[in-house]
Amino acid sequence: MKAEIFSTGDEIRSGALIDSNTAYIAEKLEENGIEVMRHISCGDDLQVLVEIIREIGGRADIAVVTGGLGPTTDDLTSEAAAKAAGVKLVLDQESLTHIRAMFKKFNRPMSPSNEKQAMFPEGSSVLKNPAGTAPGFSIKIGKCTFFFMPGVPFEMKKMLSDHVLPALLQLQEGIRKYSIVRTITTFGLGESIVGEKVADIVNEFKDIKLGLRATFPEIHVKLYLRGEDEKKMNETLGYAVNRIVDRIGPNIISINGNPMEKAVGELLGTKSATLAIAESCTGGLIADLITGVSGSSDYFLFSGVTYSNESKIKILGVNPETLKQHGAVSIETAREMAEGARRVSGADYAVSTSGIAGPDGGSEEKPVGTVCIGLAAPHGSTAKKWTSPYGNLSASYGSRERNKRWFAMMALEMLRRELLGMAL
Amino acid sequence: MKAEIFSTGDEIRSGALIDSNTAYIAEKLEENGIEVMRHISCGDDLQVLVEIIREIGGRADIAVVTGGLGPTTDDLTSEAAAKAAGVKLVLDQESLTHIRAMFKKFNRPMSPSNEKQAMFPEGSSVLKNPAGTAPGFSIKIGKCTFFFMPGVPFEMKKMLSDHVLPALLQLQEGIRKYSIVRTITTFGLGESIVGEKVADIVNEFKDIKLGLRATFPEIHVKLYLRGEDEKKMNETLGYAVNRIVDRIGPNIISINGNPMEKAVGELLGTKSATLAIAESCTGGLIADLITGVSGSSDYFLFSGVTYSNESKIKILGVNPETLKQHGAVSIETAREMAEGARRVSGADYAVSTSGIAGPDGGSEEKPVGTVCIGLAAPHGSTAKKWTSPYGNLSASYGSRERNKRWFAMMALEMLRRELLGMAL
Repeated sequence: MKAEIFSTGDEIRSGALIDSNTAYIAEKLEENGIEVMRHISCGDDLQVLVEIIREIGGRADIAVVTGGLGPTTDDLTSEAAAKAAGVKLVLDQESLTHIRAMFKKFNRPMSPSNEKQAMFPEGSSVLKNPAGTAPGFSIKIGKCTFFFMPGVPFEMKKMLSDHVLPALLQLQEGIRKYSIVRTITTFGLGESIVGEKVADIVNEFKDIKLGLRATFPEIHVKLYLRGEDEKKMNETLGYAVNRIVDRIGPNIISINGNPMEKAVGELLGTKSATLAIAESCTGGLIADLITGVSGSSDYFLFSGVTYSNESKIKILGVNPETLKQHGAVSIETAREMAEGARRVSGADYAVSTSGIAGPDGGSEEKPVGTVCIGLAAPHGSTAKKWTSPYGNLSASYGSRERNKRWFAMMALEMLRRELLGMAL
Repeated sequence: MKAEIFSTGDEIRSGALIDSNTAYIAEKLEENGIEVMRHISCGDDLQVLVEIIREIGGRADIAVVTGGLGPTTDDLTSEAAAKAAGVKLVLDQESLTHIRAMFKKFNRPMSPSNEKQAMFPEGSSVLKNPAGTAPGFSIKIGKCTFFFMPGVPFEMKKMLSDHVLPALLQLQEGIRKYSIVRTITTFGLGESIVGEKVADIVNEFKDIKLGLRATFPEIHVKLYLRGEDEKKMNETLGYAVNRIVDRIGPNIISINGNPMEKAVGELLGTKSATLAIAESCTGGLIADLITGVSGSSDYFLFSGVTYSNESKIKILGVNPETLKQHGAVSIETAREMAEGARRVSGADYAVSTSGIAGPDGGSEEKPVGTVCIGLAAPHGSTAKKWTSPYGNLSASYGSRERNKRWFAMMALEMLRRELLGMAL
């Protein structure tokens, strides 16, 4: 079955918004053995919307459409679908009741324009949206079955997995093929290096398709395999994964797609050890990553985001002499920060960061991108100085954000290797 | 002039790679007064490539194409362009010399396949690529002038600014148009409410196009205006913005597109006041947002991410009795957390959060989504209890993440209104 993905909205058309929905949907369709042929985007322009829907209707078997289901005047997708199908819009009472309920739940006043969200092309089947006010709908136009979904990513994702993918698998019936994806998370090697290391292993398996995805600063290696014999496929993938693990070794964070913070959390869990953090240049990002994992309260106790020297001294007990002699961005200060966080919180482990995220504040001796990371463990403490590969990018490339993120990942990587007894 | 953007490559088609080039190009074209009508993507499939190029050739005035100019067998763009134009590929000696020189410079061995990169459709003009080995080219197919560029972002960006945009401005000659966008950031009103409040104001200005963008949980109102008289356009937009400010009032965070954390930072700056934070359920997110703003070290002193009760007591001096009597998630605890953060850091203002981000940990009396936010100011402290509209969404679509973010925004909103002397 040939699919096309159609994303609508002026923010996407004009480039104000990067369309990440389409890549997400494409990946899910491919994983389910459906071949994506084209992506198309256009703005909130009724005529263009109708044109494109008709084109797709004459070309594809399946189309997944996002955006334009909102209540505002520039939400035109339902109207366009009706025009393209040559039917009128009709009210779906059940959806209207749902929309009213959602507004009650969020206790927001419901405006008349929201009733528009309960109008669908005649003959279409409604796709429930438990996450928001805009239901989706499915309708056949030309030779193509269309699935219209809202553009809000988390609403779209929920609707895709709950309603669209199951429906697609039914449409496939008989020709159903299994499609398995394994994701290996790596950190510390460039995309091209990872690509080279992995490519010739994957090439030995003629059925496995390789995908590399840079979810900065991690590189995710994705192995796609399609076929009928699920058990055999899993064996093949397992074997390929092991080969890749042997090849890339310590730079592998997880072989189940878990990101760094989750992998570290699991390691702390298995050791039933607790963690504290002292953050200067990362400004709370490490704590935010760690606490983004549900259940992190089992091992995470405290992070002191000590931006000022005074707070480093008062909260973490850093020695003023250390700050005076070596400065805030120094191995010595980072080490005392980690020791302090561990001491005041009573945690088993602590990591700390002190560095220059930029774009300002760099110097000859300590350029933007410099970070000192401290690590305090039951058996003692250490600290290391690193330089972010993104330090010298101009601010317009988001060097500050990238540096902060790289610093945070590097601190978690030092902790991860400590917990695994691995050298760094 | 109507433009389309066409990005090619299997990584994009399959979703392994998010296509950020297209948004970048769209923005640049719009800034230069060229209206982007459609984005299209497809994989490395010669037939589909030819089809799409022919379609665009019959529809658009200008097309900007990226990808498929590399040396490998699945780089098919030049061949597809030649087929679509009905001409043959010819060698460009100058490009071949350049490619050889590049390989020397990077001292990498040049493979015969790289010579392919010097082959262009007959009659096209070559676009130099100082940043890489793959030159681009421009050729008219149908009624459309195509610009083919490599997909490597920094090569594409350089070629776009050096060769493509200047050529486009020439094509526009007299009909040069300006395109201005103004962004108003709002918080606390639903997208549909904002849409209604704004729509009838914008409708009074026939040339202004309205776009609403939900960058959760902020709603951004975007006003697009195109025309020849830049000065007059700015006046018109300024007038429209003032009207919208009168209408939406206190829910407007900024009229220059600044997000909450930046708006709050500027308010602290103008008051030359300092800030401390005490975070439980937000887990460092508020500090991360605040420190994401360059220069935040001028006003941000400290955040205590006190996840455990012990750390609330030891670091922030919360009274154990308060925790025992009212629990961690209580107005009383939140208030003492804020007072503690302000006291230990010596900051002028402090905000605190204690709540239940979920998905676990909720109760009858304190369901997931409950948050208590404390605010300590020079003249005294207060605390309020709120419920996130996303509290009862299931974890599978990010209720934890959304609750954390909403909690953080609500805390910053309380601070913002305090700094403006506004009621909440």
